[in-house]
Amino acid sequence: MINKDETLEELMINDLVLIQKQNGFRFGTDAVLLSDFARDIQSDSTLDLCSGSGIIPILLSHKSNAKRICGLEIQKDIHEMSVRSVKANNLEDKVNLSLGDLKNITSVFPKRSFNLVTCNPPYMKGGSGIECEDYSKHISRHEVACTLEDVIIAAESMLKIGGHFCMVHRPSRLTDIISLMRKHEIEPKRLRFVHPKAQSAPSLILVDGLLRGGNELKILPPLILYNDDGNETDELKCIYERR
Amino acid sequence: MINKDETLEELMINDLVLIQKQNGFRFGTDAVLLSDFARDIQSDSTLDLCSGSGIIPILLSHKSNAKRICGLEIQKDIHEMSVRSVKANNLEDKVNLSLGDLKNITSVFPKRSFNLVTCNPPYMKGGSGIECEDYSKHISRHEVACTLEDVIIAAESMLKIGGHFCMVHRPSRLTDIISLMRKHEIEPKRLRFVHPKAQSAPSLILVDGLLRGGNELKILPPLILYNDDGNETDELKCIYERR
Repeated sequence: MINKDETLEELMINDLVLIQKQNGFRFGTDAVLLSDFARDIQSDSTLDLCSGSGIIPILLSHKSNAKRICGLEIQKDIHEMSVRSVKANNLEDKVNLSLGDLKNITSVFPKRSFNLVTCNPPYMKGGSGIECEDYSKHISRHEVACTLEDVIIAAESMLKIGGHFCMVHRPSRLTDIISLMRKHEIEPKRLRFVHPKAQSAPSLILVDGLLRGGNELKILPPLILYNDDGNETDELKCIYERR
Repeated sequence: MINKDETLEELMINDLVLIQKQNGFRFGTDAVLLSDFARDIQSDSTLDLCSGSGIIPILLSHKSNAKRICGLEIQKDIHEMSVRSVKANNLEDKVNLSLGDLKNITSVFPKRSFNLVTCNPPYMKGGSGIECEDYSKHISRHEVACTLEDVIIAAESMLKIGGHFCMVHRPSRLTDIISLMRKHEIEPKRLRFVHPKAQSAPSLILVDGLLRGGNELKILPPLILYNDDGNETDELKCIYERR
């Protein structure tokens, strides 16, 4: 079930496991924070874009009540690996991961078929940031295969009216995120800044938008990851543990 | 110098004083935070929109090195009162407050004549929020005489290329602020959230945009006003004191 260049990771959550490339893009706190941020949204059917190793669909199978959780990933070998992770967790009945390009998403899923769309997209603009040697890592980090606007357009087309789009991203892209969401009629409703420590600038943002929602944004209290002594805050511990 | 319905307030900053209506709109922490946030911007000539009692131009005369600080206010009696405050502080050489409508601002000032434009605008959309009995208070709080977009259009027309626009506003309007600034080519560059306490949601935002700036936003560490014991934080004390 596991190839030579892969590792099997125990997620320490309800016996869940995840197969990852030894030297590829590996899941981080952002995926855990996003799946926890999205767990409050009532959803029968959820779609994760740029699903990669399948970490978010697998966490959501545990954290949400959705009957059907789909994923879409463009890289063939990563997609094939994620399907094996679903099998390793016996989640085939609930989690269904597809191979495809979100720029042609309506050839994979019918329009308006999900209550919730999630995404942990590539953070960096194509060409910016430090380039990495591994092409798969590069695609996961940079807007090479899709731009932020492509992601938002795909989310818009997949959401049912009244559906939610939840994304994790970098604070430096806030203007792009908010402007593009409004442009494509996914109105930002909840925004949460994630700070490594209470006094530090945010390192991540979590945003929740509502398709065709009215314009009233709620900015939540900051999410602090570590206490001044370097230990995880109670809230971060709780996020890792709760379903 | 002071009418019966007015009070003379000592600002506790360098012997500065301010005349205010006893029962009208009175300046708050937001004006102090904005003038401190704007003090880092190098500016020979600064313009404050919706200048009201003149609090921001008067504070900036102390906090900034600008040689010329102008203001624009639409309410005749408030404008007349603010001119008396400038006199009371002997600031006539530096601070010049005008009466006028920012929707026709080019009839008051020539285009592209300021390095810095500041504004503490009405926070609430026209008709929303609790209506107040006093019409002058109503104008200061609600978008009756001008909308957020009117403010941003006026700022755009007054700024020199490379000039900055600094504003204080409510977090719930973040999407409007960011979308409209980008629409009118004032790119958000610095954003700071103001939190009553470290664990609470933000109550205000401070935004700094650059006319024709490239898109790279920096979100600063949170500005916390009060410690858990209810006392002012060192940073808030410092903001009140520093020039």
